[in-house]
Amino acid sequence: MLENDLLDDTEANPAVAAVFDDIRTSRGDGAVNNFWRALAHDPKLLEATWARMKATMMDSTPDGLDPFSKELVYLAVSIANGCIYCVHCHTAAARKLGMTEAQYADLLAVVAIASQTNALATELKVPVDDAYREPAE
Amino acid sequence: MLENDLLDDTEANPAVAAVFDDIRTSRGDGAVNNFWRALAHDPKLLEATWARMKATMMDSTPDGLDPFSKELVYLAVSIANGCIYCVHCHTAAARKLGMTEAQYADLLAVVAIASQTNALATELKVPVDDAYREPAE
Amino acid sequence: MLENDLLDDTEANPAVAAVFDDIRTSRGDGAVNNFWRALAHDPKLLEATWARMKATMMDSTPDGLDPFSKELVYLAVSIANGCIYCVHCHTAAARKLGMTEAQYADLLAVVAIASQTNALATELKVPVDDAYREPAE
Amino acid sequence: MLENDLLDDTEANPAVAAVFDDIRTSRGDGAVNNFWRALAHDPKLLEATWARMKATMMDSTPDGLDPFSKELVYLAVSIANGCIYCVHCHTAAARKLGMTEAQYADLLAVVAIASQTNALATELKVPVDDAYREPAE
Amino acid sequence: MLENDLLDDTEANPAVAAVFDDIRTSRGDGAVNNFWRALAHDPKLLEATWARMKATMMDSTPDGLDPFSKELVYLAVSIANGCIYCVHCHTAAARKLGMTEAQYADLLAVVAIASQTNALATELKVPVDDAYREPAE
Amino acid sequence: MLENDLLDDTEANPAVAAVFDDIRTSRGDGAVNNFWRALAHDPKLLEATWARMKATMMDSTPDGLDPFSKELVYLAVSIANGCIYCVHCHTAAARKLGMTEAQYADLLAVVAIASQTNALATELKVPVDDAYREPAE
Repeated sequence: MLENDLLDDTEANPAVAAVFDDIRTSRGDGAVNNFWRALAHDPKLLEATWARMKATMMDSTPDGLDPFSKELVYLAVSIANGCIYCVHCHTAAARKLGMTEAQYADLLAVVAIASQTNALATELKVPVDDAYREPAE
Repeated sequence: MLENDLLDDTEANPAVAAVFDDIRTSRGDGAVNNFWRALAHDPKLLEATWARMKATMMDSTPDGLDPFSKELVYLAVSIANGCIYCVHCHTAAARKLGMTEAQYADLLAVVAIASQTNALATELKVPVDDAYREPAE
Repeated sequence: MLENDLLDDTEANPAVAAVFDDIRTSRGDGAVNNFWRALAHDPKLLEATWARMKATMMDSTPDGLDPFSKELVYLAVSIANGCIYCVHCHTAAARKLGMTEAQYADLLAVVAIASQTNALATELKVPVDDAYREPAE
Repeated sequence: MLENDLLDDTEANPAVAAVFDDIRTSRGDGAVNNFWRALAHDPKLLEATWARMKATMMDSTPDGLDPFSKELVYLAVSIANGCIYCVHCHTAAARKLGMTEAQYADLLAVVAIASQTNALATELKVPVDDAYREPAE
Repeated sequence: MLENDLLDDTEANPAVAAVFDDIRTSRGDGAVNNFWRALAHDPKLLEATWARMKATMMDSTPDGLDPFSKELVYLAVSIANGCIYCVHCHTAAARKLGMTEAQYADLLAVVAIASQTNALATELKVPVDDAYREPAE
Repeated sequence: MLENDLLDDTEANPAVAAVFDDIRTSRGDGAVNNFWRALAHDPKLLEATWARMKATMMDSTPDGLDPFSKELVYLAVSIANGCIYCVHCHTAAARKLGMTEAQYADLLAVVAIASQTNALATELKVPVDDAYREPAE
């Protein structure tokens, strides 16, 4: 298979088909998005990546982050890494989880201020404050 | 002033002193962290950057993101950009806003899965799904 | 010439034509790929870049890296830098040098684990082990 | 535990101790490097990350990449991502696997040419050659 | 509004229309480029970003950087960040300010040498020279 | 030699000594900064890199960029790439070429606005304006 070929369902071996089925169930809309179809040319990596994705994004602990906060973090990382596919995918995912226009506007504003202070801190070679190095307790 | 010099309070001109006072009040702990002291060699940029920081991070609208979610996004961007100072600063800020160990563990896990799928999507040249391009309404 | 214009053979001055000929000979398939046609609007930079490319990728020393290992490194850097053109180009180059599906799967898996531990090490601010700082002898 | 605290052996719970033991055995030198000690504040992420690391870097298939090639890829990604800790760690790992000075020099040279052509291709907005989009068979 | 929708003039509320008018006047060609039309779904962020853009790029002080030098810096940052839209936009802007082919060739050459030495310095873990840390006076 | 060892003059072979001498002459202050001493463990890469550096940064054509503009571009790339050593080195180099505090403040302001619009353009997936794709003539 070619590197940007997308595996369709008829080409899926049983291991891949099992992951695709789990993705369909987990997403709730019956679709398998292109990322997984592209990754399916390596069934072992597909399985390992999906297992981590599911455990990380869908198995919530009561005192951990909620699914929406996790999506915001995922999206923020994807923007900073400049991954266009991931930006499309996780903006859609955040909307599906209820992101409002006001929340999206806030996300954009935070990404903007963070990006500029990241660059300024690098250029200014700001030394880390002692307070940030102290033990928390 | 040198590029990594930190302006102390006695060196601050009135414009800088006014920003420093506002930072102290906003933070609630009387401290001005090193980033602002480094940036203070350019009073205009200090004022503009602090004004955006304050408007973005502290002025919440009822239907926008809450302050804790904003900190998570800020931290996620800083990690992905590899800004060590910012990572220290905003991990501390998230803890100050109540980030628990379980939430921190979730943040790390999301950053880890996002970073790897960002790289995989780039290498696999995954085409954007039509569903992500459709209008939302 | 425009920034994303590609110089065709009829437009090449003698200096550019000489580089294009050398590229054709070195590649063995008679083609000059788009990168060099785009760079050809600056003949001096074309010559200098091609000379370094050829010296680095094609002149092997017996105890240095073999051409295939070099391509893997090139591809890994290109993925991490998010250069879509380079990812296409050097995935093709690695395949031309014999990269199997199993090797490609391994490459993807290593890029995935490296990307996530890079991000985790940044967020965790891991101090460098003394063992990594010791002289090797 | 604090974000850059390193867990020592006496603090390890049984799950963490089991991973530490496996790291010691796998490395062959009895050491647990700082990355794992920092990650150990989240035992589940430690286990998942170590499991992927081990499966990716140590379980070789006959027709896949050899361990040394994998280390080169890991190091190349870490350089491009600017992760200082990872650069120290994986340069050491490559040397442990036998990287010679000539091979290290080649690695540096490839990273240098790749970094510059990545940037040039971005600025020149080079369109992907049709040949790179064609099916391989 | 959708994330990549572009606001046309008939959809602009008075606040957005005022920014669009100011952009048209400042640019001198009557056009509002897509970036601002995309950002316009968040009028507050549009206003704040445009205000900073205008103050930074168009309000020159006699002893500060001239507009052309500022465009070169903007373009260099955009290349290094891999932002394709920004690369198109600011290459065009630099040309509009008179960038010649010889200047563009120099820009490319500097970006190329900087990108490679950045990567080499990271891999070589070069310690900062004392001379760079000394006060300037 | 170790990866972060710095070659002192007594260890330099004739090829390395010749480059060091040329660096001293070119800089005008008799010093060889750490980057070149670290790179000297690979004399061929040292020679090639220094040759490109000198040709790019010191050989000016009348209609190309002046040395100060080149340093600004170099510094901007280094900031965006997050290379701390390079940021120190090229901030010092820009100051040596006469960068004033007002110019440095402008540089910081441009880097800040560029960094934030780069991130916003990525998240907003802004399509490239037709005007930026048109031929210049």
